Amino acid sequence: MSFDTGEVAELAPALAPPAIILASPQLGENIGTAARAMANFGVTDLRLVTPRDGWPNERARAASSGAHHVIDGARVFETLAEAVADLSFVIATTRRLRHMTKRVEGPDAGLRELCAVAAGGSRTGILFGRERWGLENDEVALANIIVTFPVDPAFASLNVAQSVLLMTYEWRRVAMGAPPPNVDENPPPTREEVLGLWQHLVDVLEPSGYFRAPDMAEHMKRNLLLILSDAAWSRQQVRTLRGVLGHLVARADDPADRS
Amino acid sequence: MSFDTGEVAELAPALAPPAIILASPQLGENIGTAARAMANFGVTDLRLVTPRDGWPNERARAASSGAHHVIDGARVFETLAEAVADLSFVIATTRRLRHMTKRVEGPDAGLRELCAVAAGGSRTGILFGRERWGLENDEVALANIIVTFPVDPAFASLNVAQSVLLMTYEWRRVAMGAPPPNVDENPPPTREEVLGLWQHLVDVLEPSGYFRAPDMAEHMKRNLLLILSDAAWSRQQVRTLRGVLGHLVARADDPADRS
Repeated sequence: MSFDTGEVAELAPALAPPAIILASPQLGENIGTAARAMANFGVTDLRLVTPRDGWPNERARAASSGAHHVIDGARVFETLAEAVADLSFVIATTRRLRHMTKRVEGPDAGLRELCAVAAGGSRTGILFGRERWGLENDEVALANIIVTFPVDPAFASLNVAQSVLLMTYEWRRVAMGAPPPNVDENPPPTREEVLGLWQHLVDVLEPSGYFRAPDMAEHMKRNLLLILSDAAWSRQQVRTLRGVLGHLVARADDPADRS
Repeated sequence: MSFDTGEVAELAPALAPPAIILASPQLGENIGTAARAMANFGVTDLRLVTPRDGWPNERARAASSGAHHVIDGARVFETLAEAVADLSFVIATTRRLRHMTKRVEGPDAGLRELCAVAAGGSRTGILFGRERWGLENDEVALANIIVTFPVDPAFASLNVAQSVLLMTYEWRRVAMGAPPPNVDENPPPTREEVLGLWQHLVDVLEPSGYFRAPDMAEHMKRNLLLILSDAAWSRQQVRTLRGVLGHLVARADDPADRS
């Protein structure tokens, strides 16, 4: 409300920034450079899944060029599922598709979707792969959509910190032009709730012999996760489906019903 | 025209990419990382003004992650004026304004202007400052506009290679959505032609005593350059103005005219 802070207020996006999740990062330097990139665009929630050299990491701190608030606030997780549990919309950044049936968007369109979810009051995140081989299919399956960069096919070589820089820049650009937050009365489920539904379904199907071909079981399970993960359900709808599954199991367990 | 190259053709922007000009870069690593960033987005014309450690630079080559075509094609210039001589539209990227009367845009709007000039068939470029203190006022004066990044005012720390990454990414994004090239029959002047007009004007004014206050002369000359540099003249209009100046000098030199 004062003239002194007028310019800053205009620049500050009204939407909660996404969490940045690094899957098994190897080099502390890259974690630090990613933190520096984040801080430039006001993104501070850094989550590390099993960083190779442990945590805290002095090399990461040194490479952050003073973004110590990001480094010091970083949280470490044992699994990616735990790292994204509270998020309702997750973008996976990867250029390796390997026959995934996941929707692919450019950074601009992907971040518009993310900002729309954030505007509804739900938490969001962006997932980045390890340095050499990117994201595994099982990791991408946990995301809502894939974002790829419009790189030259003849020379595509972005490291993890460069990808974080581009995505956080684009987030801020999109967020500054986004409509103001407006709490969604019918919010989407968190990734934990989607994973819970999937695990429930797998548990129901397992004894029925649905996954009886051992060489296909992993593929079939991942495919179910993709199907559930992509559905545009509300949190309430996911709860309803959990109830349906529970009801089916109860009936299957009841001998009187086996007629 | 074949199915094999269809995807590549769709990704390739129809507009000529801008030149990337680094003013007095200090670290070879940063030149190499900038080249890598450029190559990702199909930008290859790298121009170096007085690189501190000379050229070629093995550290730059090593840091380019295989973008050797950019490194090997880089050209070195003694002055910034020579490096931008053939360009008709130059963006200066800087966050230090220091009372410059130069128009400031965001990356998106700035690159739309650049692409419009490129679509008309003229050459364009983006200028980046040295690592520690950015661009000098005299260097910014050579540009058409300033572009600043929408960074968090509380933490603004982008190095030159990160700035090159963001600008070349944004260029490709804007260029892919830009209308197809359509040669401008009334093209804008090159920076060399604008500088020539300015030098001509300074030469005409100098003997008249216009710059007689020695402590103000540099400021007055830069101000004239800013005025000429910002004018949206065509190449033909600049030629006409040179003719006007030549005529004024001829008249001033002609004793018969001094009545």
